[in-house]
Amino acid sequence: MFQDALIDAQTRVQVALDQVMRPHEGVIADAMRYTCTGGKRLRAFLVMEGAHLHGVSPQVADQAAAAIEMIHANSLVHDDLPCMDDDDLRRGMPTVHVQWDEATAVLTGDALQTLTFEVLSELEAPAQVRVALISSMAKAAGAAGMVLGQAMDIAAETAETPLTLDEITRMQAGKTGALIEWSGQAGAILAEADPTPLRHYAQAIGLAFQIADDILDIEGDAAKAGKRLQKDADAGKATFVSLLGMVGAKARAGELIVQACDALSPYGDSANNLKAAARFVIDRDT
Amino acid sequence: MFQDALIDAQTRVQVALDQVMRPHEGVIADAMRYTCTGGKRLRAFLVMEGAHLHGVSPQVADQAAAAIEMIHANSLVHDDLPCMDDDDLRRGMPTVHVQWDEATAVLTGDALQTLTFEVLSELEAPAQVRVALISSMAKAAGAAGMVLGQAMDIAAETAETPLTLDEITRMQAGKTGALIEWSGQAGAILAEADPTPLRHYAQAIGLAFQIADDILDIEGDAAKAGKRLQKDADAGKATFVSLLGMVGAKARAGELIVQACDALSPYGDSANNLKAAARFVIDRDT
Repeated sequence: MFQDALIDAQTRVQVALDQVMRPHEGVIADAMRYTCTGGKRLRAFLVMEGAHLHGVSPQVADQAAAAIEMIHANSLVHDDLPCMDDDDLRRGMPTVHVQWDEATAVLTGDALQTLTFEVLSELEAPAQVRVALISSMAKAAGAAGMVLGQAMDIAAETAETPLTLDEITRMQAGKTGALIEWSGQAGAILAEADPTPLRHYAQAIGLAFQIADDILDIEGDAAKAGKRLQKDADAGKATFVSLLGMVGAKARAGELIVQACDALSPYGDSANNLKAAARFVIDRDT
Repeated sequence: MFQDALIDAQTRVQVALDQVMRPHEGVIADAMRYTCTGGKRLRAFLVMEGAHLHGVSPQVADQAAAAIEMIHANSLVHDDLPCMDDDDLRRGMPTVHVQWDEATAVLTGDALQTLTFEVLSELEAPAQVRVALISSMAKAAGAAGMVLGQAMDIAAETAETPLTLDEITRMQAGKTGALIEWSGQAGAILAEADPTPLRHYAQAIGLAFQIADDILDIEGDAAKAGKRLQKDADAGKATFVSLLGMVGAKARAGELIVQACDALSPYGDSANNLKAAARFVIDRDT
């Protein structure tokens, strides 16, 4: 049931991404399409499920889902750069600066970000809804959100003392949490409904997602994950696993999934796919 | 008169920039403030004058001016990177990747871009006006605008044949023209008035601006310009000067200024500052 919905989301968001990128040609456009291929599409799925719960048309939801996947891809392309995380493999493919070059990676990320806002500004929704989505997206991706988290992560690499649990939680709330929170809430915002339950759900799974990433970094299979693993452990960086222990990290992730499902109670059984998604977040192998 | 208006615009946009960046702290916020200091503020001036012509409140105009200066700064920080134009001096100061490092420069540019859209989404203007400004800004800065121009510029460096006049015109329409066009039109869009005269004005001065840059690259004084000069000539790249000759380039720039001033005729004498700005574009020494 959930797996079918996830596969459906993956198909739908790819169609929407192809459509919004279709007018663009040239090297940067090629690299944008390359970057926006594959991936779990968890963020797109969250947008679509939240929209479905609130009776928003799939067509509009798919465009919003394409937007969040593009800004997510923007962060991946830039984070993979040699001056940042220096990764050569992403989703099982060479990263953009390896496949093309660093200049192309910088410009591709920039163009994915602008296209995100362009797509949101042209959604078939009232102007005040589009403005609300744009404002929250800009905050989630920016200097108080995703960029802050990435900057904290980079600073931690050369810091003399490892991050504390509080610091690593704040870092991850920015680095991965902010966009997941946006994805969770988007459907309610599109319907001009109260986004609080979906926000609480998304905050809990966002943190669980990162704890699961740290667990996967130790226990995972690089071939399945499509990227290098054990990087954090090798670099001696603090992670949820190093701070809580493997047993403690798994217990914390499990608690968060219970919290996430509790937050969905106003929706009853119609939120079953989102509940299954919460479990998927900590059970995935990629 | 024009000089006073330009200095006034410089002061006002700096106040607005300080205000919108105030909530942010840390290295990235410091680098954002550093990047948004100095410069001619031509784009901010154009926004403010266009807004004034249409009776838009200075407070709203100043926020829109801060937005365009931030996305302009985003492009400068990224363009200065070693993998792009590799510049170590900008506005007379070390570039961000020299003053900090490359990762900081990448993230600072990203954060300036998100803050641009955040500020536009929160303007004190009707939602449909904000959406129009965001949509046009995203297009101007993105894969069919500024990013495309920069990608064409980089591709030209390794191309076997120099760019033709048509190609260099298209490249510059993206690289510098698109944001200048946005700046020129913004006041009319804010007032929900017809932006056509201001758009024609801005298109003409945008192209003249780049021709003047190419002239300045040959005849300019690096100390006044606050950046390295003669880079294009040294690299053997096609420029308006190499294609039209120095006399031809100056004549073409002069024609464009006449066109620009003609486009302002619906505004009569109230557009005198904009007419003076057009002449400033080709007479500047920085």
